[in-house]
Amino acid sequence: MKICFELAQQGIGHVAPNPLVGSILVKNHQIIAEGFHQKVGENHAEKNCIENLELSQTENSILFCNLEPCSHTNKRTPPCTELIIRKKIPHVIISNIDPNPLVSGAGIKKLQDHGIKVEVGISQEIGLKLNEIFFYHIHHQLPFITLKWAQSLDGKLALNNGQSQWISNQKSRTKLTDLRLEHDGILIGAGTLINDNPSLLPRDNNQNILMRKKRFVLCSNKIEFSQYQIFNDQYAQDTYLICPKDIAEKISYPHHQIINYDAKKSFTENIPEILKKIYLKGCYSLLIEGGANTLTSFYQNHCYQKLCLFIAPVILGQGKAINESVILENLPKIKHRYHLECQAFDDNVLLTYRWNKG
Amino acid sequence: MKICFELAQQGIGHVAPNPLVGSILVKNHQIIAEGFHQKVGENHAEKNCIENLELSQTENSILFCNLEPCSHTNKRTPPCTELIIRKKIPHVIISNIDPNPLVSGAGIKKLQDHGIKVEVGISQEIGLKLNEIFFYHIHHQLPFITLKWAQSLDGKLALNNGQSQWISNQKSRTKLTDLRLEHDGILIGAGTLINDNPSLLPRDNNQNILMRKKRFVLCSNKIEFSQYQIFNDQYAQDTYLICPKDIAEKISYPHHQIINYDAKKSFTENIPEILKKIYLKGCYSLLIEGGANTLTSFYQNHCYQKLCLFIAPVILGQGKAINESVILENLPKIKHRYHLECQAFDDNVLLTYRWNKG
Repeated sequence: MKICFELAQQGIGHVAPNPLVGSILVKNHQIIAEGFHQKVGENHAEKNCIENLELSQTENSILFCNLEPCSHTNKRTPPCTELIIRKKIPHVIISNIDPNPLVSGAGIKKLQDHGIKVEVGISQEIGLKLNEIFFYHIHHQLPFITLKWAQSLDGKLALNNGQSQWISNQKSRTKLTDLRLEHDGILIGAGTLINDNPSLLPRDNNQNILMRKKRFVLCSNKIEFSQYQIFNDQYAQDTYLICPKDIAEKISYPHHQIINYDAKKSFTENIPEILKKIYLKGCYSLLIEGGANTLTSFYQNHCYQKLCLFIAPVILGQGKAINESVILENLPKIKHRYHLECQAFDDNVLLTYRWNKG
Repeated sequence: MKICFELAQQGIGHVAPNPLVGSILVKNHQIIAEGFHQKVGENHAEKNCIENLELSQTENSILFCNLEPCSHTNKRTPPCTELIIRKKIPHVIISNIDPNPLVSGAGIKKLQDHGIKVEVGISQEIGLKLNEIFFYHIHHQLPFITLKWAQSLDGKLALNNGQSQWISNQKSRTKLTDLRLEHDGILIGAGTLINDNPSLLPRDNNQNILMRKKRFVLCSNKIEFSQYQIFNDQYAQDTYLICPKDIAEKISYPHHQIINYDAKKSFTENIPEILKKIYLKGCYSLLIEGGANTLTSFYQNHCYQKLCLFIAPVILGQGKAINESVILENLPKIKHRYHLECQAFDDNVLLTYRWNKG
């Protein structure tokens, strides 16, 4: 199953809204074929794995797949269960049941009805994590949200004069690229746009762009579009503006690239509708990169599924931080709220927090 | 050698100023004896390992020891090299050379002069870390200093109203106990004394005191001794006051428990003398636990060998932090300053930074 997960990961960034799926066929304790879901609209993993094999190869074999094979027909590709049955594979081992209501156990049942032995739940926690974006958006019909920032040990994202971009070892930057690749869209506030004029696209070590991404700017005032690269580069048609209705009416920006909200309501009141609109733009996962005010809004509204903090080993003193205006009278109760993973990149560390279930 | 390190660790807290040493004797690929240095003034590891063995047992054996066996005689215990020679052990494998100028290769030479095969440097990095306190204090004749604090993600040690003690999962507390056990002394500032009235002693889960420790309070004003447990409990004779000379003259506190300094000089100017005096009190390693002002003084003067930060998954906003009054105009260059280790305790994390060599 570990090999299935590794194969599946090769689809990162290309398969949404579909899940990441890898598949191998094992015969006489040897892997005789493998496949993964490479791109939305193209073959499923199982098909890539077994379609070209002869019956003499698939007989008496075991198919491993990290997600339940599909059984529904209302999509671009024919159901994988039929292919498995046709290839006379007698034994299928699965990590996770497909949460898609159109599958959700029906694929397993169909295989079993044809006398195929099916085992489910192998390494299921790893499978759930691999496809956390897919499981979340299928269940909630909203984008999976990751808040990401880089900070000093004392929680400063920038100096008071705006200087930032200082978490800068190469391994951390590579990991940030991975995060951008994993998400469909990247969101920043207007302050970050104005300060940094970023491209927000994942790049390799030679600064080549690896993949196009939807880009979102949250702003409450008019913006000089001509000044910022995300409105003018070759991917500008993927740049969306999230702004109040009255601003939206006054600016000349393509209508379908505007997500407007009611400025009379609070952010807390607006956020569900904004997220729904982002989702309907085909953005199933969103990486929110800053600045401090934008992150604070999402953080305070518990509007995230994952926190990714890069921490550099320096204590800055005064500077910009998340939640900086909050004054607590009592320490909050925080026990067991998160599951934590930590990963060191030389002297930088990435802390990843996910909500604890239950 | 891994077994030697594990044996050696059993001496933690008991052997200073000596190093942690473990030793095993291997014959025909089997461990036939083991020992460790249990307490300062008592047997060395090698003696505990081999003293009671017959020549028939030690012949054709290999002695593993994480530190070079001693060869000098001006101490309470006879040299281990003589014992090894007498036991006719033909082969000795060592992790680190003893940096003590009285040994420092002389032990190895003595063994070799008697025809014993000696190998040095096995897992030496692990050995150096195990005995980092010993190597530091032997070399510098100053206490090894660890700054330890618990903070929120945004670097707050306490709320503005003083509330703290909120990094509170059991595993983190156990790790803090380990840190206290590893150091000879624990130092706090007067603010922490007044706010928390702590005992500063390592305790087990049932709050039983595990070991006595030297306790130091850094204060610039007079203190009401009667109000605080560290001046009144059964270990009060181990509590030292670090205060300006003029205060020292006015208070009735045992003279030998006062470390005074010149209040006209800055902390930066005073610190070398204070540390020397702490060292001369028989404190070879010092854990500095707070509060923010005390930690800031040591941090800003680069007066530490190790930083241990416990981080809890909450963002507090306003509160007390290290370096909080610093206003930087430019981001500091921080590349490769530290070696980092991270260790998760459920949703808390401990980040340990040591200076990078070179």
